Amino acid sequence: MTPAITDVVVRDIRFPTSRTLDGSDAMNVGDYSATYVVLRTDDPRLEGHGLTFTNGRGNELTVAAARALAPHVQGRTLESITGDMRAFFRALTQDAQLRWLGPEKGVIHMACGALINAVWDLWAKREGKPVWKLLVDLPPERLVELVDFSYITDALSPDEALDILRRLGPTRPAREAEMRRDGYPAYTTSTGWLGYPDEKVRRLCREAIAEGWTHFKMKVGPDLDGNARRAALMKEELGPSRTLMMDANQCWDVGEAIRQMKALARFDPWWIEEPTSPDDVLGHAAIARAVAPIGVATGEACANRVVFKQLLQARAISFCQVDSCRVGGVNEVLSILLLAAKFGVPVCCHAGGVGLCEYVQHIALFDYIAVSGSLKDHVLEYVDHLHEHFVDPVRIKDARYLAPQAAGYSITMKPASLDEYEFPGGRAWRG
Amino acid sequence: MTPAITDVVVRDIRFPTSRTLDGSDAMNVGDYSATYVVLRTDDPRLEGHGLTFTNGRGNELTVAAARALAPHVQGRTLESITGDMRAFFRALTQDAQLRWLGPEKGVIHMACGALINAVWDLWAKREGKPVWKLLVDLPPERLVELVDFSYITDALSPDEALDILRRLGPTRPAREAEMRRDGYPAYTTSTGWLGYPDEKVRRLCREAIAEGWTHFKMKVGPDLDGNARRAALMKEELGPSRTLMMDANQCWDVGEAIRQMKALARFDPWWIEEPTSPDDVLGHAAIARAVAPIGVATGEACANRVVFKQLLQARAISFCQVDSCRVGGVNEVLSILLLAAKFGVPVCCHAGGVGLCEYVQHIALFDYIAVSGSLKDHVLEYVDHLHEHFVDPVRIKDARYLAPQAAGYSITMKPASLDEYEFPGGRAWRG
Repeated sequence: MTPAITDVVVRDIRFPTSRTLDGSDAMNVGDYSATYVVLRTDDPRLEGHGLTFTNGRGNELTVAAARALAPHVQGRTLESITGDMRAFFRALTQDAQLRWLGPEKGVIHMACGALINAVWDLWAKREGKPVWKLLVDLPPERLVELVDFSYITDALSPDEALDILRRLGPTRPAREAEMRRDGYPAYTTSTGWLGYPDEKVRRLCREAIAEGWTHFKMKVGPDLDGNARRAALMKEELGPSRTLMMDANQCWDVGEAIRQMKALARFDPWWIEEPTSPDDVLGHAAIARAVAPIGVATGEACANRVVFKQLLQARAISFCQVDSCRVGGVNEVLSILLLAAKFGVPVCCHAGGVGLCEYVQHIALFDYIAVSGSLKDHVLEYVDHLHEHFVDPVRIKDARYLAPQAAGYSITMKPASLDEYEFPGGRAWRG
Repeated sequence: MTPAITDVVVRDIRFPTSRTLDGSDAMNVGDYSATYVVLRTDDPRLEGHGLTFTNGRGNELTVAAARALAPHVQGRTLESITGDMRAFFRALTQDAQLRWLGPEKGVIHMACGALINAVWDLWAKREGKPVWKLLVDLPPERLVELVDFSYITDALSPDEALDILRRLGPTRPAREAEMRRDGYPAYTTSTGWLGYPDEKVRRLCREAIAEGWTHFKMKVGPDLDGNARRAALMKEELGPSRTLMMDANQCWDVGEAIRQMKALARFDPWWIEEPTSPDDVLGHAAIARAVAPIGVATGEACANRVVFKQLLQARAISFCQVDSCRVGGVNEVLSILLLAAKFGVPVCCHAGGVGLCEYVQHIALFDYIAVSGSLKDHVLEYVDHLHEHFVDPVRIKDARYLAPQAAGYSITMKPASLDEYEFPGGRAWRG
């Protein structure tokens, strides 16, 4: 008997991270939060968990959106969903009334991400596999059926997607064994938050170097002099053998991005992340042309596969940083991995926040084993925040993510954490 | 004394339009709804009203978003807002926590639209002028100060905007007199909804022709044969002297849009509206190149000025159909009018729904008098729905919008209508 989803519980979970300026950048000062979905089933031992990440205030909106979408999930058997996930994805994203609120963007789409990822967690737990392994074990034909190709067929047809997946089929086992042995290469964002004083940045850099990190990201902001000063400080700590990336978190216009990066080029940054609005495909393309060989990276705030399609078509990005739950969950991430593979652009998923590292390790492993087949220019973001709240947290060793082994999507939080940080009634928020 | 905003009331208003298939198209079957904002002031005779349009379920999300943003409005004096509207716009759209839910798109941005438009209604009522006239009476320097140029300076600088506005300054009075005398040319969408039976379409066409309409829009869908049959029927009724437009409501991929429009070209449509995803700038550009001289139109689901900037830069649209409340209210609409003027593309605002016709007449009048200075290829959408609920409804004569004369943004609904259609407690929704 396939389990049936009997109940969709949505909880508003918030961590008061703004009190310490963890996660501060040019545009965001947040309380890392989760719209946390639990799919209960008629098997009391089996639940699917999923979340979408938000930044504090407004988490109640994605919570309400997940509840508005819940009728598309509640009462269905797992098999009726996994048997035609393209239809399930479209039922959620093309709801005839709710789609006006997007379509496929912002609050409503982030809620889709939480629900769809919860289904994947449920499916993987039912199969007794981590999500990455569930994906790796699906044949190319089944993987293609998971993708909604609407609006992307001008860049990637189902047949092309099938070719990409089939090409790597025979060599999947070797890469799987490599990943189980070595893990997936990561970089750290934990050292260079904008709100940290210089001495804290130096200390964190030294600690991270001692732990074996080789790629470091710093935040940059509107003040060029301040950016240059902090970049010099980071470079001094990193030395010539380690790699520095910069992240502007959308704080510049196109012209200003070009001006700043020409000035900051002397610090040899590998990429400039989010130089301008995440909606500005043509702007990113203009910046990319102007600042090469520095690569342009973006994605954490890009709404959906249509935006990524264009960033790739316009040769606007050298690194694709899709977020695991801003877009419509595993299914839409898969479409973006395939698009990136078609255009030869490495996917380096956005992580951090709360739960994002837990999610993206599955995506990165699957991408390497079955879609891109390459580690060249691939590094996965790691931020050392809030992992203690997860039942199966990420494990980092020698600056690499170790392959998760527990069944599911690694996103299940500890019941005590959920209770303590539930907003507004949890202990962390009272008084 | 400038009034102070003492209270922000947000109401969930829904009309059960899906019962009659009014407003049905290829993607949406909705209950026309409004997230309705009232700004109460310390002057009991003075309130500002604004709404954002939604399509039924999910209106509770934009309601919750407006409440989440209300702290940026509540307690402020009107003068403190109107004295620096660029800063006010950025306070709403760049809230350090809420912006993660967009940024500047979907639920959160639509709620900004409701609040910002409510401020404009309040300002105009305080000045005793309709919003279009309040705008027309502002000097170019003041108009430029209303605009947030973030992310658009690569296409339009403040100085260029100033030049556009100054060029038309001396001739504003003549166009204002013309508009007061003749009104603004309109087209009708009321005849060609996808859910209507053929005989109803024929009857509505004949009635509209008798009323003097010259431009008619029909809905098209995935079925080419059905589209062709209905287009032939419309053309038969309209004859060679009237103009037919087509609206696909995003139902096609890029390749399919080109295929269908090549086949439908024999019906001589003036424009094809929303041929594909509203996020697909490059896709629209490809369609525009392929189907010329049929013009591509889009905008009702385009999230913000950054998307419009790119549609214009890429020469992807021949008609700019910005929505009055999906983007951030009058201020962001103004930035889009200026961008369109720079690129020489006519703005034909999206209307229909509930309250959108009431809004857009102000925008169109202001655009003609102060920004574009032209009526060539300009027609304003008109849909004959739900006007009876407004205190100062649109007035149509000989297929033209007559210039509104009452103070405000024409968006104030009758108290009895608000009570009857409030969801879920109003009489229309009980039982």
